[in-house]
Amino acid sequence: MRTYLDHNATTPLRPEARDAMIAAMDVVGNPSSVHAEGRAAKSLMEKSRGAIATAFGADGADVIFTSSATEAASLALEGRDLAGSAVEHDAVRAWIREELPADQAGVVAIETPETSTLQLANSETGVIQKIPEGLAVCDATQAFGKLPVAFNWLGAEMAFVSAHKLGGPKGVGALVVKRGTDVNARLKGGGQEMGRRAGTENIIGVAGFAAAATAAVKELEEGVWKEVARLRDLLETTLADAAPDTIFMGQTSDRLPNTSCFAVPGWKGETQVMQMDLAGYAISAGSACSSGKVKASAVLTAMGYDATVASSAIRVSLGPNTREEEILGFADKWLAQLQKYRAKAA
Amino acid sequence: MRTYLDHNATTPLRPEARDAMIAAMDVVGNPSSVHAEGRAAKSLMEKSRGAIATAFGADGADVIFTSSATEAASLALEGRDLAGSAVEHDAVRAWIREELPADQAGVVAIETPETSTLQLANSETGVIQKIPEGLAVCDATQAFGKLPVAFNWLGAEMAFVSAHKLGGPKGVGALVVKRGTDVNARLKGGGQEMGRRAGTENIIGVAGFAAAATAAVKELEEGVWKEVARLRDLLETTLADAAPDTIFMGQTSDRLPNTSCFAVPGWKGETQVMQMDLAGYAISAGSACSSGKVKASAVLTAMGYDATVASSAIRVSLGPNTREEEILGFADKWLAQLQKYRAKAA
Repeated sequence: MRTYLDHNATTPLRPEARDAMIAAMDVVGNPSSVHAEGRAAKSLMEKSRGAIATAFGADGADVIFTSSATEAASLALEGRDLAGSAVEHDAVRAWIREELPADQAGVVAIETPETSTLQLANSETGVIQKIPEGLAVCDATQAFGKLPVAFNWLGAEMAFVSAHKLGGPKGVGALVVKRGTDVNARLKGGGQEMGRRAGTENIIGVAGFAAAATAAVKELEEGVWKEVARLRDLLETTLADAAPDTIFMGQTSDRLPNTSCFAVPGWKGETQVMQMDLAGYAISAGSACSSGKVKASAVLTAMGYDATVASSAIRVSLGPNTREEEILGFADKWLAQLQKYRAKAA
Repeated sequence: MRTYLDHNATTPLRPEARDAMIAAMDVVGNPSSVHAEGRAAKSLMEKSRGAIATAFGADGADVIFTSSATEAASLALEGRDLAGSAVEHDAVRAWIREELPADQAGVVAIETPETSTLQLANSETGVIQKIPEGLAVCDATQAFGKLPVAFNWLGAEMAFVSAHKLGGPKGVGALVVKRGTDVNARLKGGGQEMGRRAGTENIIGVAGFAAAATAAVKELEEGVWKEVARLRDLLETTLADAAPDTIFMGQTSDRLPNTSCFAVPGWKGETQVMQMDLAGYAISAGSACSSGKVKASAVLTAMGYDATVASSAIRVSLGPNTREEEILGFADKWLAQLQKYRAKAA
């Protein structure tokens, strides 16, 4: 029996998404075709678009479906030379002037919102940012589904999200913009997504995204994440009691309810990931997207942690179905490994 | 009972693709994660990549998965200023110097293959091009699955394909390049696809593409498309016998076995599409991607047809399961509509 504690990397597919995707497999047409089969496909696309707008509190805004949050980020950011911070995801960092500082609590200081980008929540630490009114672009990927978010009240001109962080399929994202906002299309040669993103649509994936987002928001409203936060806090107090020198990153900030990032300086994050994997627990060191590279977390470095601490951190990210015994089991195994590490290091 | 004769726009999902996609829904991990769940996801990605390479005769080449042929085209073409023809798909035309002429048979003349792009088969007419050795980029989207194609023997440095043209899901494509060819990544901020295309992968869709391509190539080898070609030819002779002034585009060229493009000058393509839709037949006028726009086909214009002919053309594209009675039923209804049109026009 394995325990999956890496929900910020990706999530299991929700049953609602699975059902919606299987149903969408019977939709034969191309949404750009004018015949009945095409109109049925178009209708499913628009129904899904409406569901995402509702789930994301973006009624009246434009939802542009993409193949990932990474693609949505490029659509929002390319060629705009916005200011941002090193705590942003690499898919954002690829396009920005990386000049906004973060403090040790992980909070980013923004001077000119209208020429800046800021994430709503950090994937590694879970730290939540206050979004200033008029922000150009907001990465809401990790927040959507875990926090109450309404685009129409967020204060950002654009925001992007991903299906696979909230129980939808991998390979689907969306850029949400205030109605009529200009977007420089990067995929050209077709009128899809109002000319902002050409290419035949991933209808099956989009249907799964819509169903997952709807289910995620319902669950959120039912208070499921409060229990998740209790388990996350239980994990942290359990570890801190047994290993008082453990550093918990961003703990003094508002955080996602499911995320814990911590380090015992010197005990490499990669080593812990492998040891806990063998013990039956899936966790991560840094974000999954860059986990191939063994290097210190840029997020933690930006927060002022030195290389030893930054390369010793791991991330445990819970899901809505995580159970208390799984968390206590993890704490047990981790503390046992820590003891071994200390015995060896002594 | 409806009859779908628009397989060049998109195809119904093959049962093999459906099964593979449903199986892939149980793959929890992110392929970039190093734990067991991540490795299982990575393994499915690589198995799918291998299946596409085999189906496309590209063993030893690099297969880069994308969200569509449109995205693959942009990855192959952006910033390279290659020469091409107006018979190319709009997703190619968006990036090229449109200067290569086509003759009335639809055949494109290429002078410098190494700085040119050329489709293997045209979506509207089905006309097949001879690919010159050293061609920079080949759009094999319509050909893959309908014709025997092997990238390793094609003569092109790069080629791109799409899942949904051969019974796979919409929203998945691939760019295939000779091993080690430089590709300018357009999606950045992650190491996926060897750094050439960032973003968490559409694993479910990719698994469906692999299964569909494998099934399509098996069917092709079994000779299924010979029967399709017989039905297409039956359609054309039936129509030509009853309406001798019908113009069949590209008929003197090598063509895809499933495609027929024809016009009765003056009888608008859009009108025919709607009339045949009401009669229970899904066909198209022009390519689906631009079917929202009511304008003369750029492909037919490039072949030298005047605006009246070009705006009167429809495309009938058969699938591997199309039956003779469906074709004869279509011919019947179409000829009846033609009689009405003539009575009205007289």
